[in-house]
Parts: sequence; C-alpha cells; structure tokens
Amino acid sequence: MVFLTFLDYLGVFVFAMSGLLTASGKKLDLFGGFIIAFVTALGGGTLRDLLLNVDISWIIKPNYVYMVIAGVIFALAFKKVLNRIRKTMFLFDTIGISLFTILGVQKALEHDTPLAIAVIFGLITATFGGVIRDILSTEIPLIFRKEIYATACLIGAISFVVLHHYDINETVNLILSGSLIAIIRTIAVIKKLGLPVLNDKI
Amino acid sequence: MVFLTFLDYLGVFVFAMSGLLTASGKKLDLFGGFIIAFVTALGGGTLRDLLLNVDISWIIKPNYVYMVIAGVIFALAFKKVLNRIRKTMFLFDTIGISLFTILGVQKALEHDTPLAIAVIFGLITATFGGVIRDILSTEIPLIFRKEIYATACLIGAISFVVLHHYDINETVNLILSGSLIAIIRTIAVIKKLGLPVLNDKI
Amino acid sequence: MVFLTFLDYLGVFVFAMSGLLTASGKKLDLFGGFIIAFVTALGGGTLRDLLLNVDISWIIKPNYVYMVIAGVIFALAFKKVLNRIRKTMFLFDTIGISLFTILGVQKALEHDTPLAIAVIFGLITATFGGVIRDILSTEIPLIFRKEIYATACLIGAISFVVLHHYDINETVNLILSGSLIAIIRTIAVIKKLGLPVLNDKI
Repeated sequence: MVFLTFLDYLGVFVFAMSGLLTASGKKLDLFGGFIIAFVTALGGGTLRDLLLNVDISWIIKPNYVYMVIAGVIFALAFKKVLNRIRKTMFLFDTIGISLFTILGVQKALEHDTPLAIAVIFGLITATFGGVIRDILSTEIPLIFRKEIYATACLIGAISFVVLHHYDINETVNLILSGSLIAIIRTIAVIKKLGLPVLNDKI
Repeated sequence: MVFLTFLDYLGVFVFAMSGLLTASGKKLDLFGGFIIAFVTALGGGTLRDLLLNVDISWIIKPNYVYMVIAGVIFALAFKKVLNRIRKTMFLFDTIGISLFTILGVQKALEHDTPLAIAVIFGLITATFGGVIRDILSTEIPLIFRKEIYATACLIGAISFVVLHHYDINETVNLILSGSLIAIIRTIAVIKKLGLPVLNDKI
Repeated sequence: MVFLTFLDYLGVFVFAMSGLLTASGKKLDLFGGFIIAFVTALGGGTLRDLLLNVDISWIIKPNYVYMVIAGVIFALAFKKVLNRIRKTMFLFDTIGISLFTILGVQKALEHDTPLAIAVIFGLITATFGGVIRDILSTEIPLIFRKEIYATACLIGAISFVVLHHYDINETVNLILSGSLIAIIRTIAVIKKLGLPVLNDKI
C-alpha cells in the first residue's frame, strides 16, 4: 500500500519536527535537537522492533532517517511559521499517532502475539518516542500527566484488534480504528478532557 | 514447578502494586500510573530477555500483563489499607526481589553465560524495574542512593552461582540463596545499614 | 589485531573511571557509582549490539566487565590524583571516544547496514554511554548541551565510511579517521568551540 507508506513517512517527518520544536528553548545545541527529533520520531518503533526481535525498521530502510533529517531541516527553516500554525501541527501530530498505533498493532499481530499484547505494542509505538523525548529533557513524560492521548491510542488499538479478530478488511479497519483515535483525541483536546489524576483519594 | 510460577506471578503482582503506590502523589494520571506499575514489575525481566536475545516473557505469556493489571486494580481499590500495612508490603517486596534475582541468574545460566555475567543478570532482573520507575519519575534511582537492596541481591546471586557450580539441587539452592537475600535485606533495613556514599574522601 | 583489543579495553577502563568520578559528589553509594561506571563504559556498545541484533559484547566477553571493575577500583584508589591530572584524563577519554566511534561503524558495516546507518552506529557507540550516565543522574545529557564531542565523532564516522567505500586499508582508515576525531575534539576544547544552541532565533 503506497498510501500507507506515504502516511508512515509523513508521521516520522511530523514527529521529527515536533521533537525539534520541543528541544528549542531548552538550551540544547543542534546535535541535541537532532537526537531529540530522532527519538521522538523513531523511538517508539525502535522499542517495538527490539521487543518483537525483528530488524529495526530504520536500519533496513534508511529512508526513515532521511525523513527525520528532512523534518529537522524543515523545522529549523520554518520555525516561526510552525509556531504560529499550532493547529495545523496538531492535525499532523494526531494523524501521526493514529497511524503509529495501528502500524504497531499490525506488526505485532504479524508476529503472532496474543491480542492483548498487540494492543500494548500499538501504545508503545505511538507513545514511547514522546516518553524518551521527555526523559532526555529530564521531564516527567507528558502523556503520564495530561491529555487523553494515550487513552485514545488504547481505544483505537482495541478497536483494531477486535475488528481484526472478526476478519474485517485490513484497510477498512485501519481507516475506522485510526479515525477513532483521531476523533477521540480531537474531542478530548477541544473539551479539555483528561484522565483522573492519582492522588490520596484515588 | 508450580510453586515457582506462583511466586513469580506474586512478585509481578506485588511490584505492580508498589509501582502504582509510588506513582500516586506525583500528579500522574491513571495511564501514567499503569505504565509506572508495568515497568516496575516487568522492566527488569524485559531488559534481561532483550540482552539474552530470548523471547520477552510477557509477550509469550500475557498472564504477566494480567498480573500487572490485577496489581494496579488491587492497589487502587485498597490504597488506604496498603499504605497502613507497609510492613506486609515490605515482606512481599522482599520476596519479590529475592525471587527475581534467582530467576534472573537461572535464566542467564540456562543460556550459558559465564558465571560472573549470570550474577549481573540477577541484579538486572531484580533492580532494573525500580531504576526505570525512578527515571520515569525523574528521580535519581533509589537503589543508587540508599538501602542495601542491591547488595543483598548481589550476595544472593553469587551464592546461587557458587552452589550451582557445585551441583547443589536447584530447588535447595533457590531456597537457600533466596532466603539469604531476604535475610540480608531485612537485617539491613532493621539496622539501617547502608553502603558508603561516594564523596570527596571515598 | 591485538593492539585494537588493547585500545578497546583501555577505552572501557577509562570510561569506567570517568563514570565513577562523575558519580562522586551526587550522593550516590558505591553500588550506584558502579552502575554509572558500567553504563558509561558499556552502555553505548550494548545499545549498538541490541539494535544490530548480535550477541552483547560483555556477555560473551566478560573481560569487559572486569575492565569496568578495574576502572572503578582504580578511580576509587587514586581519586585525588585523577582529579588533579584532568588533562591526562581528557587524553584517555578522547582516545576512548575516537576508538568507540570507529569500532561502532566497523561493527555496523560488518552486518551490512547502509553507509548512513553505519555512521549513526558510530555515534551511538561513542556517545550513548554518556547519555545514559546523565539520565541516571537526572541531568540533561551533556553532549546535547555543549562540546563539539558528538560532531567530532560524526565527522570521523563519515570519514571512515567514505574511506571504507573506496577500499582503503582498514588499519590505515582506523588511524586516519580516529585521529581526525581526536584532533577535532582537542581543537574544539582548546578553542572553546561549540555548536549553535537552539533558541528562538535558530
């Protein structure tokens, strides 16, 4: 599926941009910014491939690395503009996580993991890049603290696994479950929904 | 050995509880709490399996994941009680690390690592979950700073490797070396023993 | 090549010393100091081997672990002297990163990665140990913030890959590209050169 590959590369490109923008203002130098962009874009997929014991995607397809480099250059060149069009960035970012979730679930299912484990792989692929990004910046990972981000991925991953179990056509499933993630996240951000925070009571 | 499997699951359950309790009060949401519980319980074993290049235990046995979920739910439901019975928790926790140490050494020996390396795998399995937990909360890992925790695991792991070398029955060895860890840790906590802290003099 | 193996062990020894010295003054105990020394010396190579899906070097050659232990003991015994001869330490450290970079590139090329990917493996091998060291101490990794360190490794790695592509003798290539890294880093430190820091303008 050419379109899927295109979306995958787009996701890497967008995540690299968002990584670079996050790195700015933290007194990181260019190299640090590039590393943050790299792990934001490819860290989740790398952990997924390590755990599944398959070839790391960016080692066998260096195109992924070139997309990161392109994303970094683009973000450096158009930083001011990008900071102004946060809403467009949010759109790309949401497409990115929706797609990464489904691709992670798919890759796990291809390697015959149990269904519940495939769901976890969707989550890892979509969220772990951001987790490493935050750890490298010595911040408590954002997705542990707010946004419904991970919950949206979780619901979409479960949806994909269930529809897959009932032999729904993969492309249809991808579109349905991916859209579900994008819609839930968008609604959550608009309505400022969040998960309950753990405290003395809960 | 059914009893060993039972203890292993119990260890995961207890570590998940302790991870969730640690996460509380750090302004993490439910998802963050679950991730902290997951890595506390399964992080050490995951790194061990990655380094040994064997199948990740929780991927092929999803029961481990269900034990984490059960531990999280249990901890959420009985938080107040659990915070009151810290001593019981300490007991479970000590059983957990004793067992994780020995299981880590065993798994390494099964894959024919040198004896010194098997000892390191015992340490990794028992301590690394807590290390990732602390890094995700952006704290310097607890076991690098206090408690004789890791030292107890080290001594027990060496004991297991030595007795294994002299062909002592595995079950006897497990009980002896595991108890050694539990006893050293308990004495250390009661007597408030710690390793020397690195400073200008040492 | 006996000389190469000697340099490799020396690099591990020196990195372990520098890890231990970094750990001092952070209120870490002996165990914590040892772990920091271990990951500083062997963390980069471990990640490289994990990603390439080959046996982890220190598991099959425990000599690496013994070099770490030796480095820790040496650093503890001669801490005062070592703190006084920072320049000598810098020399060893520079030899270490130069060598680790080239060894990382070589190992990747042996496993037929694309050339651009081999360059990344040189960087990972040379820098990742320091990155984990800083994360474990909850600091933003040093090499993301200052020094031309990583850039020197990058240039040397590219040099090695290009000369390798043109079938230059490996030993000659090692000496040329390795020296290039050492020279660039030394000049950068003497002249206090750094990469531009990411901020609102760049």
